Amino acid sequence: MFSQTVEYALRAVVHLAMRRSEPQTTAMIAESTKVPTAYLSKVLQGLRAKGIVNLQRGLGGGVSLAIPPDKLTILDVVTAVDPIPRIRTCPLELKSHGVRLCALHFRMDAALSKVEDAFRSTTLAELLTDPNPSVPLCNSSEDEETSTPPAIDE
Amino acid sequence: MFSQTVEYALRAVVHLAMRRSEPQTTAMIAESTKVPTAYLSKVLQGLRAKGIVNLQRGLGGGVSLAIPPDKLTILDVVTAVDPIPRIRTCPLELKSHGVRLCALHFRMDAALSKVEDAFRSTTLAELLTDPNPSVPLCNSSEDEETSTPPAIDE
Repeated sequence: MFSQTVEYALRAVVHLAMRRSEPQTTAMIAESTKVPTAYLSKVLQGLRAKGIVNLQRGLGGGVSLAIPPDKLTILDVVTAVDPIPRIRTCPLELKSHGVRLCALHFRMDAALSKVEDAFRSTTLAELLTDPNPSVPLCNSSEDEETSTPPAIDE
Repeated sequence: MFSQTVEYALRAVVHLAMRRSEPQTTAMIAESTKVPTAYLSKVLQGLRAKGIVNLQRGLGGGVSLAIPPDKLTILDVVTAVDPIPRIRTCPLELKSHGVRLCALHFRMDAALSKVEDAFRSTTLAELLTDPNPSVPLCNSSEDEETSTPPAIDE
């Protein structure tokens, strides 16, 4: 239900929120978010156009958040790249309905509204300080130790 | 965010719930729901496969609801044709996360869960008895009177 673009944009801003001390290269973001570089570049351009990230070219440049993580909500990011398609007018284009949605479309829109509300109520800072043991984008060291060793060509 | 298939399936079952006294033809449903007939046929096959509608061929046959409107929820219909894609495991396939979602994916899944909850709590019967003045799939007569008359070739 959430587009690939939304998923990738959220991964990218989480990466940037976790590493604010120095600008990140697209390659660094691509590696930690597991997003194909070409797709990531388009997503970052979209985020830049909406003022979510800064892109600085050249030496010492890179990608950084343009908004502090405690001021940036999940909804801000989603709306920047692929807004929740709220139902504002009758999808059947019935003239008598117009903006007065019938019960069906009113309920469908209400569900979309709940998604917006949930995303509006969570900042990037809250995601990073969540006590959840699974850290976004990161394999735990425990897992590294117990993971299957890479196969070796003989 | 909701697929065309979901939108069309919901229109079709609303039509059937409003006209339970006699089986409907695909052409009748297509006309009132404004769904292309070929697309509608596929949607109805999907609903039949999941036991939401009955399709009877031949004289006196047609399409009808297989479940009473007061027992059929919006979620039943959505799940039959295009289920809400809940996030069950780490989309990055991080081994240490697995089913223990990080804060980001936990919040995204929680939003999807709210959509399911909203759809689970509404039956087709409730949609039809809603006091909303815009009746699903129907232009009001008031609108018919005030609409622009069709152009006449001279």
